[in-house]
Amino acid sequence: MAHIDSLTQTLLTAKSTTTHTFASLSTLLGRDEVAIAALFYGAALPSESDLQHLSTALRIPYDELKSGFEKRGFPCRGVGMEMPPKEPLVYRLYEIVMNYGWAYKAVLNEMFGDGIVSAIAFSTNVKKEVEDDGSEWAVITLRGKWLPYKRF
Amino acid sequence: MAHIDSLTQTLLTAKSTTTHTFASLSTLLGRDEVAIAALFYGAALPSESDLQHLSTALRIPYDELKSGFEKRGFPCRGVGMEMPPKEPLVYRLYEIVMNYGWAYKAVLNEMFGDGIVSAIAFSTNVKKEVEDDGSEWAVITLRGKWLPYKRF
Amino acid sequence: MAHIDSLTQTLLTAKSTTTHTFASLSTLLGRDEVAIAALFYGAALPSESDLQHLSTALRIPYDELKSGFEKRGFPCRGVGMEMPPKEPLVYRLYEIVMNYGWAYKAVLNEMFGDGIVSAIAFSTNVKKEVEDDGSEWAVITLRGKWLPYKRF
Amino acid sequence: MAHIDSLTQTLLTAKSTTTHTFASLSTLLGRDEVAIAALFYGAALPSESDLQHLSTALRIPYDELKSGFEKRGFPCRGVGMEMPPKEPLVYRLYEIVMNYGWAYKAVLNEMFGDGIVSAIAFSTNVKKEVEDDGSEWAVITLRGKWLPYKRF
Amino acid sequence: MAHIDSLTQTLLTAKSTTTHTFASLSTLLGRDEVAIAALFYGAALPSESDLQHLSTALRIPYDELKSGFEKRGFPCRGVGMEMPPKEPLVYRLYEIVMNYGWAYKAVLNEMFGDGIVSAIAFSTNVKKEVEDDGSEWAVITLRGKWLPYKRF
Amino acid sequence: MAHIDSLTQTLLTAKSTTTHTFASLSTLLGRDEVAIAALFYGAALPSESDLQHLSTALRIPYDELKSGFEKRGFPCRGVGMEMPPKEPLVYRLYEIVMNYGWAYKAVLNEMFGDGIVSAIAFSTNVKKEVEDDGSEWAVITLRGKWLPYKRF
Amino acid sequence: MAHIDSLTQTLLTAKSTTTHTFASLSTLLGRDEVAIAALFYGAALPSESDLQHLSTALRIPYDELKSGFEKRGFPCRGVGMEMPPKEPLVYRLYEIVMNYGWAYKAVLNEMFGDGIVSAIAFSTNVKKEVEDDGSEWAVITLRGKWLPYKRF
Amino acid sequence: MAHIDSLTQTLLTAKSTTTHTFASLSTLLGRDEVAIAALFYGAALPSESDLQHLSTALRIPYDELKSGFEKRGFPCRGVGMEMPPKEPLVYRLYEIVMNYGWAYKAVLNEMFGDGIVSAIAFSTNVKKEVEDDGSEWAVITLRGKWLPYKRF
Amino acid sequence: MAHIDSLTQTLLTAKSTTTHTFASLSTLLGRDEVAIAALFYGAALPSESDLQHLSTALRIPYDELKSGFEKRGFPCRGVGMEMPPKEPLVYRLYEIVMNYGWAYKAVLNEMFGDGIVSAIAFSTNVKKEVEDDGSEWAVITLRGKWLPYKRF
Amino acid sequence: MAHIDSLTQTLLTAKSTTTHTFASLSTLLGRDEVAIAALFYGAALPSESDLQHLSTALRIPYDELKSGFEKRGFPCRGVGMEMPPKEPLVYRLYEIVMNYGWAYKAVLNEMFGDGIVSAIAFSTNVKKEVEDDGSEWAVITLRGKWLPYKRF
Repeated sequence: MAHIDSLTQTLLTAKSTTTHTFASLSTLLGRDEVAIAALFYGAALPSESDLQHLSTALRIPYDELKSGFEKRGFPCRGVGMEMPPKEPLVYRLYEIVMNYGWAYKAVLNEMFGDGIVSAIAFSTNVKKEVEDDGSEWAVITLRGKWLPYKRF
Repeated sequence: MAHIDSLTQTLLTAKSTTTHTFASLSTLLGRDEVAIAALFYGAALPSESDLQHLSTALRIPYDELKSGFEKRGFPCRGVGMEMPPKEPLVYRLYEIVMNYGWAYKAVLNEMFGDGIVSAIAFSTNVKKEVEDDGSEWAVITLRGKWLPYKRF
Repeated sequence: MAHIDSLTQTLLTAKSTTTHTFASLSTLLGRDEVAIAALFYGAALPSESDLQHLSTALRIPYDELKSGFEKRGFPCRGVGMEMPPKEPLVYRLYEIVMNYGWAYKAVLNEMFGDGIVSAIAFSTNVKKEVEDDGSEWAVITLRGKWLPYKRF
Repeated sequence: MAHIDSLTQTLLTAKSTTTHTFASLSTLLGRDEVAIAALFYGAALPSESDLQHLSTALRIPYDELKSGFEKRGFPCRGVGMEMPPKEPLVYRLYEIVMNYGWAYKAVLNEMFGDGIVSAIAFSTNVKKEVEDDGSEWAVITLRGKWLPYKRF
Repeated sequence: MAHIDSLTQTLLTAKSTTTHTFASLSTLLGRDEVAIAALFYGAALPSESDLQHLSTALRIPYDELKSGFEKRGFPCRGVGMEMPPKEPLVYRLYEIVMNYGWAYKAVLNEMFGDGIVSAIAFSTNVKKEVEDDGSEWAVITLRGKWLPYKRF
Repeated sequence: MAHIDSLTQTLLTAKSTTTHTFASLSTLLGRDEVAIAALFYGAALPSESDLQHLSTALRIPYDELKSGFEKRGFPCRGVGMEMPPKEPLVYRLYEIVMNYGWAYKAVLNEMFGDGIVSAIAFSTNVKKEVEDDGSEWAVITLRGKWLPYKRF
Repeated sequence: MAHIDSLTQTLLTAKSTTTHTFASLSTLLGRDEVAIAALFYGAALPSESDLQHLSTALRIPYDELKSGFEKRGFPCRGVGMEMPPKEPLVYRLYEIVMNYGWAYKAVLNEMFGDGIVSAIAFSTNVKKEVEDDGSEWAVITLRGKWLPYKRF
Repeated sequence: MAHIDSLTQTLLTAKSTTTHTFASLSTLLGRDEVAIAALFYGAALPSESDLQHLSTALRIPYDELKSGFEKRGFPCRGVGMEMPPKEPLVYRLYEIVMNYGWAYKAVLNEMFGDGIVSAIAFSTNVKKEVEDDGSEWAVITLRGKWLPYKRF
Repeated sequence: MAHIDSLTQTLLTAKSTTTHTFASLSTLLGRDEVAIAALFYGAALPSESDLQHLSTALRIPYDELKSGFEKRGFPCRGVGMEMPPKEPLVYRLYEIVMNYGWAYKAVLNEMFGDGIVSAIAFSTNVKKEVEDDGSEWAVITLRGKWLPYKRF
Repeated sequence: MAHIDSLTQTLLTAKSTTTHTFASLSTLLGRDEVAIAALFYGAALPSESDLQHLSTALRIPYDELKSGFEKRGFPCRGVGMEMPPKEPLVYRLYEIVMNYGWAYKAVLNEMFGDGIVSAIAFSTNVKKEVEDDGSEWAVITLRGKWLPYKRF
């Protein structure tokens, strides 16, 4: 199971008692759905405005919500994730990195030179596409700043 | 270093002696750049037409190229990749999966129900975007078929 | 021990106080026995009808059962399983994959081409066979959709 | 890549120069296709008759074939397999064990009592099924003798 | 420390308050001492008669004992053991397997052919021998059914 | 595969060209069969007399044999063994240690006090037993000196 | 942190409320300081006399102390230690084994023949030495019985 | 086997063709035997004088010896050692660290305060002691400078 | 998350209720900010004066603070840190060691000879630098005593 | 040993035959010493000017040097480094990250907010300091751009 602290539990429970979805919260907060879920699971930090929207939408008293996030402090992203992931959906993403890792590196180095894609100056989102035959496809976009190695 | 068999070596050397890039080969073969690199590193299978284009473009005799791929047989994707990846660029992709894995799962499950994103019925590509301030961004798109768990 | 949350405990205890078996529940719900056990251990999702049948058969109040499954949310299959498995029965299945993995791959690639057997569009069941000498045999059938690699 | 000794290489190369498939060799030797592939990869032992059939079918001199197998000696099954498997097809089988391991155990213990499914007194085969919509399914059957724990 | 559930604790405490030893319980139940200890640590299943003898000998109410074992269910042997074992005595046994593993395999394959020694159709016992110089020796006997690989 | 240096290879090849077995060599050298195999695999040291018997029996020139063993030097037992063992026969022995490790410790501590069974002041042998129903059983005996912890 | 059971906690707390040190307890019990600390951390067994001295010195009622040690049972040495050790002082000892392991083996084999240094028939102590320049040195002595491999 | 580069091989072979032992070389070079072996295995650096003595004693041309050591460069101590060590003698030392690690730390912290024993400002030696009953004991002394944590 | 004992919790909570920062505490105690944080997380020891300043600044009763640190005892640095670190900031430091480890060693050996940089006789601090374009840079300084290997 | 490809070997050998040091090459190329060593070990990319200076200084034909670096391609930093590092000097750096990782994070988050120190937009250098008492200290400076998490 995901790394679930008591705030995650509070948020998930509150969300399940409203009609809100990650999608509707995304509209409300003006952040991507993955970022909303990341707020829930402790991999992102809320702004003051995020706190107010979440408090209203999920009917969690503002002070309780604020102090919950303060108690977490700065996110320790990744700490609660067992690797390699056993959960099948997450494993598929891991497998893509494993199978195409060198190919991504070769293409990106050719395109940009010696450097990396930032996972910090980074955003991501998820979309659903439906083909004519009714099949559904998930499109995950990763957008990261290119950081060239600094010469020293 | 990547898992490099003698065919990878042949392909990389041949490419370096021409003016071809993954981008130009992509146009030629009608496949995404990552797929071209995947052909090089042994994570994809060439079609008959791919073989002919590669042979001409990289000036590798067709028979040598064909027999090189035949000797590889069906791809053993992922086998040459040490995990967790130590190479910084590949690690950043791994880190994205680690940091946002549960968030992706939560959003995807909400959007599609109980299932996974296929890494097989799957395509990917890489684009460069340049912002007004000159900063460069890499946009990696992952597109996988949604596979719902079959009830049994 | 298996990854046992409080719902698993509730279900196992309830089952032990009735005369129900995985086999009888299988008949009742119209699902394979392994699927029934997977419901217990958190590796499958119940339908509305499954919930009603389980509630009646195991004498667990419907609301308690429903909320137990809701609290679990979408299954995190595999998360509670230590690998390599130490439990001898499970290890035997693991050993089969380890011993015959390359053989399965070779035969399946020859039969279907470049792709994989889905573990998601997938069903499985277990049968007992008794030979003339009284020896008992377990027959486990795995049936997965063949997914060819998509060209990109 | 699979654990490939020189005999595996010899066998695969010889097979690729004939029209034989694992399927046709299966008919010839009277063994399941997976067993034929297991002979190739060093996870099974040939009988005298297997040697003769393979020699003829694959046009490998009998003495060379026989001495190749003798040099291997008794199979060291599983030794060449990296676990967890990185190759996607083999991983799917591994994932099935990981996801449904406790469910299999629960059902089998109920059905047979305290014991295990043998991976030694064991056979397996693979079949292709095509549904009306043209989708293809792989059916893998595992059949192992039930071994009850001996009281002592 | 060993994997100790509450039943293990109950049994060990009860044993320490009587004059019973594994040896005396062995006589009483007609099982080897190692099997008695395995009952304590959750690696074996008691018969009806075992339960009655243990209840009387250890002065644990029969119903409490029976329900303790029922709650455990079918044994998950091995699950509580950290490997490699850090405990020195258990490590010595592990070391014997590590040092002489290939030698055992070579001798057993020569003696019996292609197969394994069952760890299920298996019994074991421990004896003390004292030499003339007063030195003490532990003799551990492992007796397992030989299982030849089934041809398929 | 086992850790096979060139001496192991020489010994195994030589043995296969004579009619000698581990059993017949055991008689000749006056050592247990497992010890003979351990000499082959580098887990034991030959005496002068062992060298002479092996040289004669396996038709390896004495000087070649002697210098082969000298080049190995003092045995590095265990170094060539991957743990956990993937080879099924060796795994069964490993599994016995894993399943019954705490039970052995409990019984041995009760029998001898605080200490360990030596794996150095140690001998082992393997016997075949055939039951009335024709079933074959392997009996492995481990005999190690009991070493009490020294008070300090 | 070290593997600290409630008895360790009791002993450490009691020691901190008296003026006793491992050194003074060493004098009192007639055991080396490391052995005293090993008693605290569960890696050694007290004699009857040890119990009495510890009870008096640390002002822990004798019965409480005795039952604390009885509840622990025979020591499971090493079980609470994470390896490789992260704690810097313990890591330095580990590093010495890692850096000089083969050198120790080479020298000891030359000196004693084929065998090992016992870690059971073993004692150890720690001394402080101060050099003329005021620098302090720790001298750790390990003394173990030499155990030659038994011929079999 | 130990991490043996070609210089180690040269040194060991040369030593075996003379009557020199680590002990006699120790006298010659004025270094402890373990240090001599460490020179062989690449865990120590020779002085100019060491080179000359080794060259003469082992009849290796000085220039060959000097260039062998130069090619190694500064020692990469520990790099060739698999941990946990599988070799039984080295494992016993590892086990001592594992079993008594916390006890050493407790005693040393009490004796010296907050700090560590240096493994760099460090020496070690090995001695043989024979007791009256003829039993042999190895005494390994570790002497390391105490390094207090610097306040910052 | 970091290894947080109850004292860490107390300190962090207390700090959050005052206006103190690591920076202001650094001024107060005369220790670097990293050392202050290390006190919080259990990787450093407070002096008497540190205790008094912390007590006053964070409004924690002196006795409670003192006894909290006493209960911790001598620091077990590193014990609460999962390696490789999953937290992205800490991973970047780890990556620097991984990427430039051999380069640091080569430069330091050339500069100082055969030895190591002490992590014990060691201090560190962190500074912020802002470039003309407004970009912020963190400068981490590591200063460790050079320890040459002692000849023995 | 470090991950040494044939270019590393060429560079190290060439350097040892001149009077050049990392320090003198640093002056020549205008890069930090660690960067020079990183060029040697494959963790940095040379500029055109670097190639020319290295060619002249180390007397390696320019074309050979250029083609050696081209064959390496874009650096795969970190790939040749075993983690945790066994080499003592590199381990000390690793230990600093392990011991003070959370402290660095706490201080940096307070100083800069939610983000990381870049290991890419990064430079480092090493200096020697000698104190009045003659003791030598290594000062390693890490300077990385602060990257705040991008809101999305």
